[in-house]
Amino acid sequence: MFSAIQVQNGDLKLLDQRLLPDQEVWITCKTHEDVATAIENMTVRGAPAIGCAAAFGLAIAASEAEHRDSTDFKSYIQKAAKRLSQTRPTAVNLFHALQKVESSAISQNYAKTAKECAWTIAHKIYSDDLKTCQRIGENGSRALQGKNLRIMTHCNAGGIATTGYGTALGVIQNLFDNRRLEKVYVNETRPWLQGARLTTWELLRSDIPCQLGTDSSAGILMQQNLIDAVIVGADRIAMNGDTANKIGTYSLAVLANFHKIPFYIAAPKSTFDSNIQDGQGIPIETRPPEEITHFKGTAIAPMDVPAYNPSFDITPHTLITAYITEKGNLAPDQISQTFNDEVLL
Amino acid sequence: MFSAIQVQNGDLKLLDQRLLPDQEVWITCKTHEDVATAIENMTVRGAPAIGCAAAFGLAIAASEAEHRDSTDFKSYIQKAAKRLSQTRPTAVNLFHALQKVESSAISQNYAKTAKECAWTIAHKIYSDDLKTCQRIGENGSRALQGKNLRIMTHCNAGGIATTGYGTALGVIQNLFDNRRLEKVYVNETRPWLQGARLTTWELLRSDIPCQLGTDSSAGILMQQNLIDAVIVGADRIAMNGDTANKIGTYSLAVLANFHKIPFYIAAPKSTFDSNIQDGQGIPIETRPPEEITHFKGTAIAPMDVPAYNPSFDITPHTLITAYITEKGNLAPDQISQTFNDEVLL
Repeated sequence: MFSAIQVQNGDLKLLDQRLLPDQEVWITCKTHEDVATAIENMTVRGAPAIGCAAAFGLAIAASEAEHRDSTDFKSYIQKAAKRLSQTRPTAVNLFHALQKVESSAISQNYAKTAKECAWTIAHKIYSDDLKTCQRIGENGSRALQGKNLRIMTHCNAGGIATTGYGTALGVIQNLFDNRRLEKVYVNETRPWLQGARLTTWELLRSDIPCQLGTDSSAGILMQQNLIDAVIVGADRIAMNGDTANKIGTYSLAVLANFHKIPFYIAAPKSTFDSNIQDGQGIPIETRPPEEITHFKGTAIAPMDVPAYNPSFDITPHTLITAYITEKGNLAPDQISQTFNDEVLL
Repeated sequence: MFSAIQVQNGDLKLLDQRLLPDQEVWITCKTHEDVATAIENMTVRGAPAIGCAAAFGLAIAASEAEHRDSTDFKSYIQKAAKRLSQTRPTAVNLFHALQKVESSAISQNYAKTAKECAWTIAHKIYSDDLKTCQRIGENGSRALQGKNLRIMTHCNAGGIATTGYGTALGVIQNLFDNRRLEKVYVNETRPWLQGARLTTWELLRSDIPCQLGTDSSAGILMQQNLIDAVIVGADRIAMNGDTANKIGTYSLAVLANFHKIPFYIAAPKSTFDSNIQDGQGIPIETRPPEEITHFKGTAIAPMDVPAYNPSFDITPHTLITAYITEKGNLAPDQISQTFNDEVLL
């Protein structure tokens, strides 16, 4: 697995995830506005990767303003942070990462040192995420029992959704490395097809056995006793454990519950939101209906049919077996005590 | 709503459902082999429509052989019936319709009268289906309580899946005509998109309010209390009530059960199979993986990724509230006594 985020000569380079697996095109973001646009249009996606890209976006803003006086610099940074924070509403990692970079930059007296500080923090967010995901992989491997495991996953919580190792796919990579994995069942994940386009692409690159299916075939696979566990990532987790993740996650959790299959969320602490008590407080992004009614510009539904395209749904904590984090594997009632105070540190 | 099946000068004309809603193209089937191909490649689809098209296919075979002697005629008809029966394995209406036409033709002493008999029976299957669907509509309307109903449906069980009125959409049409319908929530139904392409197209033509979503958004809609009932069609129903229908139906039934939403199967008696006791006996068609990995010839997944494409799944009777048939609304334990003896008459 590898990272879809690179820094080169003060620019942010992003592997365009809209074009995978057909084309591997890198987009260069020279301004913080370029980064904001890339997050909005899903050139970069995946909660930890969005957070990391936004952090570098704010560091770029700091470079843009490094010759301003301290007051001007601060107001420029605050404006840039606001712009970057308004790109996507659901993944909380975005806000956590921006807050870290902004507060470290704002706390400096000189624009030049503030800029250096911003870049240092952004790079730290990047390198920390890699270590975090590796630890999630190890902890996930401990959470699961047995060998020859058949794991179902949804959307993409892999290397390209993080800074190179993945959360749900980090667990899968660890199981594979320890020869405990039989196969990964990948749901295609409509409408954006992150499963079909991105997850299978990452798994094939790592020689991990996988099988693609429509989201609708998850039920028949569970009914046929082919799935030992479901592992997915998350975009935001409330303090009671209610979890926002890619649309379809909730349906999968209900199905897993019906079939008595364990259902795991793999996510770093930056995905937990200590300001939100339960799922009702998590904002759900609604994306354009054209993502459903069209495919690469071709209509696949009658003109003007109303379509509803929520990008995420909320899975209540009652359907979640455990949260696999870099701090260990937590039951819902352990979240608050583990993260409440330190999540923003 | 209207029929996608027409007979003209001894030919069968089929509205090509692969091209809807973009293009309305009628295919002319001049031979029984043309009809078999049209069923195989899904020019015509929907269990009752498949049965009806196959019946006309066998009538066309009777015309092809009308100048043969009686023995030759019979063996030709039997061979044609076999060919037509091997087009698709799951929908039992196909076998019932072929059996009716074949047995009536075979029972005649002269090829010419046998041919006439075959055409009469095929036309009767067509006209009976229309009346049957209207009765299903009335019975479904009785099964549901209240006004302003919000109904979810999956795949297409509409006019073009039958001979003009529809089973699940027949119920919806009746509710709409009686001003008891608020909205129809249509799942797009991957991979073939029958919901997005066909059901919304039929509903919009009838001015019935509808909203399209991915199959994965069924969960969030139920969670938000937006769905009063789920109504779907069926391809084959075992005597204990286990039901084969479009892939994704089983997941929907599990979701409906979790949310305590009634789940109805709307189907004519020709969909019940008195030879099969439970769902394990129903053959499930697996279609080419390219239906998942490609879209109109464009790859949407990495080359050579294994993909599993079951066209149907089995919903156990324990998840089904009632079967809406032309004979009335049945609980699972009423099926056997209602259909066992008469289903093949």
